[in-house]
This record gives sequence, structure tokens and C-alpha cells, in this order.
Amino acid sequence: MNTKNKKLHIVVKKIFKKYKLKSEHAEISAKAIINAELVGAHGHGLARLKMYCNRIKKKLINPNPQIKIKKISSSISSIDANNSIGFVAADIAIKLAIKNAQKTGIGLVAVKNSGHYGLSSHYAEQAVKKNLLTMIYTNAPPAVAPHGSSKSLFGTNPICFGSPSGSKIPFILDTSISMINRGKIRLAERNNSKIPRGFALDKFGKPTTDPKKALEGVQLPIAGYRGSGFAWMVDILSGVLTGSNHAGGVKDPFIDFSGPQNVGHLFLTFKSNLFEKNFIRRMKDNIKTIKKLPKLKGVKEILYPGESKFFKYKKNLKKNITIKENIQRDIEWLLKN
Amino acid sequence: MNTKNKKLHIVVKKIFKKYKLKSEHAEISAKAIINAELVGAHGHGLARLKMYCNRIKKKLINPNPQIKIKKISSSISSIDANNSIGFVAADIAIKLAIKNAQKTGIGLVAVKNSGHYGLSSHYAEQAVKKNLLTMIYTNAPPAVAPHGSSKSLFGTNPICFGSPSGSKIPFILDTSISMINRGKIRLAERNNSKIPRGFALDKFGKPTTDPKKALEGVQLPIAGYRGSGFAWMVDILSGVLTGSNHAGGVKDPFIDFSGPQNVGHLFLTFKSNLFEKNFIRRMKDNIKTIKKLPKLKGVKEILYPGESKFFKYKKNLKKNITIKENIQRDIEWLLKN
Repeated sequence: MNTKNKKLHIVVKKIFKKYKLKSEHAEISAKAIINAELVGAHGHGLARLKMYCNRIKKKLINPNPQIKIKKISSSISSIDANNSIGFVAADIAIKLAIKNAQKTGIGLVAVKNSGHYGLSSHYAEQAVKKNLLTMIYTNAPPAVAPHGSSKSLFGTNPICFGSPSGSKIPFILDTSISMINRGKIRLAERNNSKIPRGFALDKFGKPTTDPKKALEGVQLPIAGYRGSGFAWMVDILSGVLTGSNHAGGVKDPFIDFSGPQNVGHLFLTFKSNLFEKNFIRRMKDNIKTIKKLPKLKGVKEILYPGESKFFKYKKNLKKNITIKENIQRDIEWLLKN
Repeated sequence: MNTKNKKLHIVVKKIFKKYKLKSEHAEISAKAIINAELVGAHGHGLARLKMYCNRIKKKLINPNPQIKIKKISSSISSIDANNSIGFVAADIAIKLAIKNAQKTGIGLVAVKNSGHYGLSSHYAEQAVKKNLLTMIYTNAPPAVAPHGSSKSLFGTNPICFGSPSGSKIPFILDTSISMINRGKIRLAERNNSKIPRGFALDKFGKPTTDPKKALEGVQLPIAGYRGSGFAWMVDILSGVLTGSNHAGGVKDPFIDFSGPQNVGHLFLTFKSNLFEKNFIRRMKDNIKTIKKLPKLKGVKEILYPGESKFFKYKKNLKKNITIKENIQRDIEWLLKN
């Protein structure tokens, strides 16, 4: 990371500490936010900083949480995050899931009373580095209408899967079940830009390219009833199962100050060599075979999930993170207030 | 089930036994095929009967498999199916995954050297009836092109998730990552009907509604690169991880007689009340809330995954299974040859 980005990391950490996060929690949170910027997921980056601080100030995020960890078996644990900032709960959870899997082959960790934790891939990377496969689910505030309904209820409920690839670039699929990420719509709103047609409906059920109207309306799920089914699955795994809010109950952190978000997360991890000792060689063969396929016109290389984000990250490491004017104002305001 | 369908079950079982399956294996296989017909998944039903028998005759399905079960931990097991008919391997695997989860809270069972097992939901139901959540993955012969490629390599690689719902209708999402199920294309081919536009390309990369051309060409994944990523995930989970064929290596059972299919499956199960004792009440609340949402015009009820299949099943139980002429000919031929 270049000097200017390192400085930005220090500023973000300083702001979190100013808002009473413990130094260790501020570090975890700043790291996640800077990482989101570096992989190009700006909707999970600095654009959320003021929101987090707002919620800490309003006591909706607990800066000094008493996080309770319960051991259910040597593989399974549950965490009550006591409304900590989501980054911290997720960081504890993935580390515990990794530990459990290293001990028994498989780890399952449920988290309740948490908040938005940014990118699932950020946590998946930790597991993959330890040679584990991982599946991560989290729910989110209402954004997508269940199939057959005109009202949004499901979150963009990402599905994340990570696997060692045999190269330094992990295989990480991290995909929202919405045609567009809610963070990206919000970013478009902040930057006064449009969103593509076919990604959202306004509150009257009409297609819209206006991010403001899309946020009031309904985002469309991927693949119709299938995407709706995936979103419902994620709501069950991360909400119903864990003891968190679900069925539209997760609060929108930007506009709903009636209580903590109570987001839920589920982290599953297991050893890659459980069944075949040569998993890594098999993965390499798999990727090699697929990359060798004939390509569509204009396609230079068939990329596996995670590669494009990794290349962006590598490139962005050398560049200064672009800070939009409105976000620069946020940062200055937060340093003062 | 009505008398005529019961008789059909007996005929199918008789055919399998005639082709040297053990009585127990013939029963499991006949049950899966009749069930597929009853839920309306005809592409996984009688249309495959002749194919299975062909492969047994050609020694590509082993009618007398030495199935090896290896205990890796009290939660984790692996199965080498020794090229058994897929139904049998999957039935043993889900039962073992259920047993492991009941003992330790979580079960993970990998299967290699197996074959096409029909519908994932058929096995998910078993786990859900025992109050478990389940996730099931299996790979399949090349049908869908990886994102960026003009050649099919991924199978229709279904993703299946099951959960107790608090009602007798289980929540079961069982969705192919292809716009259209390969079985449905094959059925359309057999019935000389068309497939919808936008679901497949011919071998020259052009959209087609001709099932024959679609089978020679490429099926389109759901949701572009996301669906391609899901297919790749399923190939890793059920193929690379388990020791089965992968990266396009699973043989098409209808046309490739160069060896056994070597399909892989992965079965994950865990107790629904691991983290919250009142899981069932929470699920009921979840479903109730979603069903109460305002509906789009023309929608009578918002259905959860599995309901529509269940209603079809209930309705079909009272009716005779329709046997197309060509399939009736297959059955008669199989009874004689």
C-alpha cells in the first residue's frame, strides 16, 4: 500500500477511535473499509464511514460490546455480538470458524446481534489462506422483492464461497442475489449518476434508472424466482437460524435509527483435503482446463471468481484511493465532530 | 399413490431387477423415478429408464457395487460408490449425513464414482423430515458455457437447500444454474417440441429454440457471470473436492459410453435448533410475514421454494402418470430385452 493510502487508513482508524471504538476494533474496521476501496467495492468503503459513526453516536452500534462466544461442539460455535460494529463480529467469527475447522475438519459459526460487515470476501480470504473452503452468508435490509411480491423484503443477501486455487489468487465467489448491489445504488445517489435499466423498480413498480427512486422502490433479484429463492435461503441461514432479525426485520443503517440492525451471519469452513490429499493439484487442473476453453469474441482470458477483484486490488495498491468531494467533507466533519 | 401408479412402480422395479440391480437398489431407483414423475420433473423420470439400463448392460453402471464408506470423523464421511446407480449412492449418502448430524450437530458426506441421481430435492426431503437443514451439490455433464467461453463445460450443476418449514411442506430450493434443465431439453427433443428463446445457443453460438441444436450447443447460465460462478462452485464442491470427474469430465450418460460417469455429490446437513431452540416458530413467522406481502397483479399467493412441487405432487398422486408413446415403447422393449 502506498504512503497516502496508509495515511488514509490511519485517518479512518483515528475517526473510529474518536467515536469510542477500542483501538483493536478501530483497526479491524479501518482495514475492512480500506480493503473495500482497494478492491473497487466503493459502496462498502468510505461512503459508509459517516453512517457507522452516526450509529455509534446514537448508541445503535455498541463501541464497547460484551461479545459472548458459546461453544456448542468442537466444530460449532455461536456468537452474540452485542451490537458490535459488524466488522469486529465477523472477524472474530471467521477466526473461530477457521480454528474449529483446523481442529475437527469442519467449522460452523453463527453470529447474531451484529451489523453490516462490508464484503464477505474479506473474511473468506482469511479462511482460504489457511487452506480451507468456506461458505459465508449474511442478511441485509430490505431491498429485493420476493418473487410474486411488489414490496422489497429480502436484502441483497450475498452468497460467498471461497476455495484455495493453488495460486496466490484465491477462488472467491462473492455475489449479491440482487441485479445491483445496494451499496452501488447508494454510491450512484451520492455521485448523482444513474443505474442501468432493468436493475430496479420505483415504488410504483415501474422500471427506473434513478438511484433515489430505486432506493425507495424495489431491486430486482437475479434470475427471477431462482434469485428470490437464493435470497430466502440466505435469510434462513443467516437470520432465522442464528437468532437475528429476518423476514425484512434487518434495519437499514442509513435511515432507520429505531434500534440496532441485528444482522446475522453464518460462517462455514472445512479442510480442502478432507477427501482427496491432492486437492490443490486438482484445483489447478480444473482452472487450467477451463481457462483453455475457446473464448467468446473480445474475451482475452476466462477469469475465475476473485481474479478480477484481485487484479483491481493489485493495481489500486499503487494508486491513491480516490476520495469524492462529499466523502472528503464527511471525513473532515467526522474528525472535527 | 393410485393403483395404476403403484403398478408402474412395480414395472420399473422389475425392469431394474431384470437388468441385475439388487432388489433393494431396484426399489430405491424405481422410487426416485416415480417420484420425479409425480413432482412433474419428467426429465428425471421415465425418460431416463432406458439410458440407465443401457449403461448397466454396457457395464458402465455397476449393478453389484462394492460401495466403500470411510469415516473421517464423527461428522464427516466419504463414499466411493464404485459406479453404482446414482440413486443408491445418494440414498446411502444422505442417510449417513443425517446420522452424522444427529450425532454431532453437523454432517458432511462426499461421494465419488457415482452417477446421475435424479432430483436433489428427493434426498433433501429425507434430511428435512429429520428436522435438519441441508445443502446438496452434484455436478453433471457439460451443458453450460463458463462466462467468457463459447464452449459448454459446466453441468447444469443444481444447488439445493432444504429446511424444515413448520408445515408438512418442506422449504426446498432445488435450482439448476442453467436457464433450462438439460432433462427438459432432452424431453422436448423426445416430444418434438421447442424450447423458449434465450435459453440456449447452437454450436455456432446462435440462439436456438430447437432442442437438438441446443443439446449440441451451449445452455446459458442464469444471471451471466454470477450463474457461471455458481456452476463453478458446484463443480469444486462436488467434483474437485470429492475426487470425482470435474471441469467437464463428467460423461453424458445418454451419448458417452467410453466409461462410467464418475459424478460427484456433496451432502451437508445440520440441526435446525443448533443456535435457537425455537427455530420452527421463527421459520413459521418468516414464511407468514413474506406471504402477507402485497402481491404483483395476477399473483394469488407468494409461494416458498418447494410448495409448487409439493402441490403438483399432491395433485398427481391421484392421477395416472402420463406415459408418452415413445417411453411406453421403451418400457415394453426393456421388459422383453
